[in-house]
Amino acid sequence: MKLSVVKIGGNVIDNPIVLKDFIQKFANIPSPKILIHGGGKIATEITTKLGFPTQMIDGRRITDKHTLEVVCMVYGGLINKSIVAQLQAAGCNAIGLSGADANIIPAQRRSATPIDYGYVGDINASEVNTEIISTLLNAGLTPVFCALTHDQQGSMLNSNADSIASAIAVSMAAKTEVNLIFCFELAGVMEDITRPDSVIPLLDERSYQHLRSTGIVAKGMIPKIENAFAALKKGVKRVIITHADKVDQPSGTTIQL
Amino acid sequence: MKLSVVKIGGNVIDNPIVLKDFIQKFANIPSPKILIHGGGKIATEITTKLGFPTQMIDGRRITDKHTLEVVCMVYGGLINKSIVAQLQAAGCNAIGLSGADANIIPAQRRSATPIDYGYVGDINASEVNTEIISTLLNAGLTPVFCALTHDQQGSMLNSNADSIASAIAVSMAAKTEVNLIFCFELAGVMEDITRPDSVIPLLDERSYQHLRSTGIVAKGMIPKIENAFAALKKGVKRVIITHADKVDQPSGTTIQL
Repeated sequence: MKLSVVKIGGNVIDNPIVLKDFIQKFANIPSPKILIHGGGKIATEITTKLGFPTQMIDGRRITDKHTLEVVCMVYGGLINKSIVAQLQAAGCNAIGLSGADANIIPAQRRSATPIDYGYVGDINASEVNTEIISTLLNAGLTPVFCALTHDQQGSMLNSNADSIASAIAVSMAAKTEVNLIFCFELAGVMEDITRPDSVIPLLDERSYQHLRSTGIVAKGMIPKIENAFAALKKGVKRVIITHADKVDQPSGTTIQL
Repeated sequence: MKLSVVKIGGNVIDNPIVLKDFIQKFANIPSPKILIHGGGKIATEITTKLGFPTQMIDGRRITDKHTLEVVCMVYGGLINKSIVAQLQAAGCNAIGLSGADANIIPAQRRSATPIDYGYVGDINASEVNTEIISTLLNAGLTPVFCALTHDQQGSMLNSNADSIASAIAVSMAAKTEVNLIFCFELAGVMEDITRPDSVIPLLDERSYQHLRSTGIVAKGMIPKIENAFAALKKGVKRVIITHADKVDQPSGTTIQL
């Protein structure tokens, strides 16, 4: 069994037309697959509409009690069930899950020092319950995870979707060959974001260090790529960063050790 | 395998202390079990806070596009995941689901004539996918359903929690012995709602017709009891209507043919 673990980010979620196209193409992937989705802007919009203040520290949002409720509603309810219903219509037998469901992804609430980010959960690939994931895959199902986990003490936690995707990919790599595919709004890691033809097809650690030192790879792409190398070192076969409309024929950037 | 299919209503959901007590007792049921939960008042509160109008026809709420979004958020996200996290903490390996997940409960959108109730789904016990429910139960999991289904064409639908509980109980009765337990805020079907000691312990069709003709059983209890008789006629072994704090030792009213 070759397994594809696919993550889509908020920019895909926020655009219904892009999302619909992605869903059709994801449904077409013939091999066993798992989807992890981010949140998009809807949670922020709902938080504002409900009159809850958005607390930020150092540019990062704090998940207070109200924010946790909103992300549970939006990620676990609105977005997750919408994606599942659309995948079902596209012929993919999807099952929507959070990390609390079947205790698949237990998490630890992040330490309150030095900064208390609130109800945020950090996860460890070694704690992912791969047995139940295999049971679901063997039953012909496609698990669809939102970026929520739980503290095993009764509270949900907000977690990072990239980290969940990596943890699931790494944990399943002990059982089978895993491709980890990060889908977003660009064609891959670009030398020049304004030039669509500047996708870097292959990135290894040496070329990454060079691109990083010259500033070509910067900002939000750095944690994504370092996350990818970490996953590869823990057994994931291949990490691909690509446009959401290429999920069924991964092109984009392949990252390897 | 003896299976308990338990439904809790909105009044239990709306009171965190009552809900917590229920969750602990539900977790204690040793046999395989399934939980179906209603919505409670939170969806109406969120709808109002978000500034969406509540459309009513003949005292019944219309599930327009906005209402559907809110019920997906509140039932599928907020309430379902909160119950799952609390069950996990109580030692019950719960998995939160809607009827769209794994296509367990496909539904038909209700006809728009004579009244268009909007995104409301009617279900049929013969269409419940019992195979995947059995797979989950055999894996040691406790499915927790919110009252959402899907139209198999990409849209979620709002469904009645009592109907979902009955449909699941009836469909599983073809495989195993099923007890269907409706939990709410009263001790059972009462002769006199002001007298806690007036619970009717046993109700068969003849005694029900008598109580109905004398007006002792009325209003909201009528569809519940008729629903119960219908489930019994389709193979459910026992239907019990009881207080949420008695879920692990069903007392209340037992309904039989």
